[in-house]
Amino acid sequence: MSVNDATLTFDDVLAAKERIASTCIHTNLIYSHELSNEYNNKVYLKPENLQVTGAFKLRGALNKIKKLSDEEKQRGLIAASAGNHAQGVAYSGHALGIPTTIVMPKTTPLIKVQATKNWGANVVLAGYVFDEANDEAKRLEQEHGYTFIHPFDDLDVMAGQGTIALEILEDLPNTDIILVPIGGGGLISGVAVAAKAINPNIKIIGVEANGAMGMKESIIAGHPITLASADSIADGANVKTVGSKTYGIVEKYVDEIITINDEDLAEAIFLLVEKHKIVAEATGVLPIAALKKLNVTGKNVVSVISGGNIDILTMSSLLDRGLYSRGRLFCFSVKLKDTPGQLVKIAEILAEVGANVVKLDHNQFKALDRLRHVALEITVETNGPEHIQQVEQVLEAHGYAIEVIY
Amino acid sequence: MSVNDATLTFDDVLAAKERIASTCIHTNLIYSHELSNEYNNKVYLKPENLQVTGAFKLRGALNKIKKLSDEEKQRGLIAASAGNHAQGVAYSGHALGIPTTIVMPKTTPLIKVQATKNWGANVVLAGYVFDEANDEAKRLEQEHGYTFIHPFDDLDVMAGQGTIALEILEDLPNTDIILVPIGGGGLISGVAVAAKAINPNIKIIGVEANGAMGMKESIIAGHPITLASADSIADGANVKTVGSKTYGIVEKYVDEIITINDEDLAEAIFLLVEKHKIVAEATGVLPIAALKKLNVTGKNVVSVISGGNIDILTMSSLLDRGLYSRGRLFCFSVKLKDTPGQLVKIAEILAEVGANVVKLDHNQFKALDRLRHVALEITVETNGPEHIQQVEQVLEAHGYAIEVIY
Repeated sequence: MSVNDATLTFDDVLAAKERIASTCIHTNLIYSHELSNEYNNKVYLKPENLQVTGAFKLRGALNKIKKLSDEEKQRGLIAASAGNHAQGVAYSGHALGIPTTIVMPKTTPLIKVQATKNWGANVVLAGYVFDEANDEAKRLEQEHGYTFIHPFDDLDVMAGQGTIALEILEDLPNTDIILVPIGGGGLISGVAVAAKAINPNIKIIGVEANGAMGMKESIIAGHPITLASADSIADGANVKTVGSKTYGIVEKYVDEIITINDEDLAEAIFLLVEKHKIVAEATGVLPIAALKKLNVTGKNVVSVISGGNIDILTMSSLLDRGLYSRGRLFCFSVKLKDTPGQLVKIAEILAEVGANVVKLDHNQFKALDRLRHVALEITVETNGPEHIQQVEQVLEAHGYAIEVIY
Repeated sequence: MSVNDATLTFDDVLAAKERIASTCIHTNLIYSHELSNEYNNKVYLKPENLQVTGAFKLRGALNKIKKLSDEEKQRGLIAASAGNHAQGVAYSGHALGIPTTIVMPKTTPLIKVQATKNWGANVVLAGYVFDEANDEAKRLEQEHGYTFIHPFDDLDVMAGQGTIALEILEDLPNTDIILVPIGGGGLISGVAVAAKAINPNIKIIGVEANGAMGMKESIIAGHPITLASADSIADGANVKTVGSKTYGIVEKYVDEIITINDEDLAEAIFLLVEKHKIVAEATGVLPIAALKKLNVTGKNVVSVISGGNIDILTMSSLLDRGLYSRGRLFCFSVKLKDTPGQLVKIAEILAEVGANVVKLDHNQFKALDRLRHVALEITVETNGPEHIQQVEQVLEAHGYAIEVIY
């Protein structure tokens, strides 16, 4: 049966599994003690960040491209993406020996451009946002006759993504709930069709960022709508218009859509690094942040971590933010009399209370007043909120007035 | 056959596998395109950072503890560790319902103390270095009759670690080389005995940090020696005196020992985050850093990533360092005339050349000279060394003299 018909079938997903098996890896479920304890469910992670190319997108792209006719392959591939779809298509083209062109917005970090070039793709930089890059890809498709590979609204692409559900249910047959990020809807469409075919009682819950809830709005409207803007740190899911095919499948098979704010995504990224030693991108942790919004207990819940391609600079600053919010770093300013020996005294107090100084900003001009006070801005490494309280109390007991900065 | 004899056998490792199977996970090998291309071998990672508790240590501790007599179990467990052994013993005690006491140095980050307490262990803080904590553990063993669990110089512990080799050779039967970190020698002893029993031609290569090469020095000396100091960022392997039992096994079965400097470990941690989306501790990446010191090509090489329990603060600063060394961040100072509009001009130039300003330090007092120049310290996000060169050239073309800070 061909998937060029209007609907996606379980057989399409089974066929996709065979097609991609030699290239994509079966990512094993990871049981999370920490998340299970916290949310009173048995929580498992499906780590597609550990998939080849660092994201699930390879599954769909490879299935699509392997199914192309020889003539379509000979025309070469074209796709637009600044993210995981780019690498999925480039990798597939490389593996199958098909010339590949990827159009990326000019604002794409060079590191991602480089990763795509590394798979032998010809990279064209065009436009400043995805839509502009996509327009250029469409233009090149017309001009050169390239074969266009859509990131989500394509039944063969969805079928590839659906293989994730086959693996989940192979590893954990009594899965109750699968939490899946939604961008354009390709991933959740494949997962929903495959999972419900195996067990119609499995709940499929989609997760969107508050800043880009295109599918939720579409379901409410009763048809695919276009958002005025799609803006969240979950950049992989910042899609203004969900697919028309994916909309139909989500409307039919998906049980619920949960939405998440950016702050919770940052927390979830930190948690996965600290507790599970894995790196996920913001889009990838939508299903982790969603756990606290479930109104069930004792269920087998699988959170699909869709990808791990986060910019290291972004990650480093998220980790720093997490350290402050957990009380592992503490920044405060203290007024000192501008006389010799004041710095020594503060340093001694901090050493005694076990707070390791990691940064010091001694500004003689910031807080100059008629009493000749100067402001000392100090960042210390602490062991949590209680330790911070102890630091504050000891300093106050020594007569220092401190002001918390963050 | 009992492993309380003087030597470790393949049967001991096979028995350990059965014993720990229900708790420890089989960590699947991860093929590394990037490392394979770079070093002209087929490189695989054995990700024990993804093991329960975040490190391989659980395997050995659990095997040891499951083998204890009922009487030994009833006496309760004691161990000294600030690291992965603490969590391995605490987790095992918890899983088997055995009261467990862990002695940790007072300098242990609270986050690790908490992780150990989370498994129900009684944590005693004593001493400031491992040796002092170990002395206290020995004292408590005497005082309360606890059963002492050694971190490495114990045949049952080694047998547990050896299960790693069984999994590697199950996943990749034609493995040529296994690279293994050495601290006290427990991990490599188990791996060497098991791997050589399956295929005597497999090369087992140990990897130590330059600052703590106790095993290498011992092999050279012909007997276990005690280092004056053991100091590297690979804190899990900072062991002054390797085991006497492990020494005997390493001397007999290990083909070579490679040593690594701290800088290369930091680089390897960055690489695993960026390319493989996994978090490893410094000890865990010794076998990644060792890849460039192999004088072979075309071989199937497995690097055992022993653990992922790195402090997030440490990791965050390592990532920052990596960003600078890769040219993804660039910090420089530039002298400006202290007249209005100078900052605007610089900001415009940087925007044009695509260098995103992430930090600015405009100090009116730092570089005050008779020409009324001020120093502006700027940190920008760049796309690599070539982009930095471009930034430098454009600024110079506009008549600005810049000084690279890092």
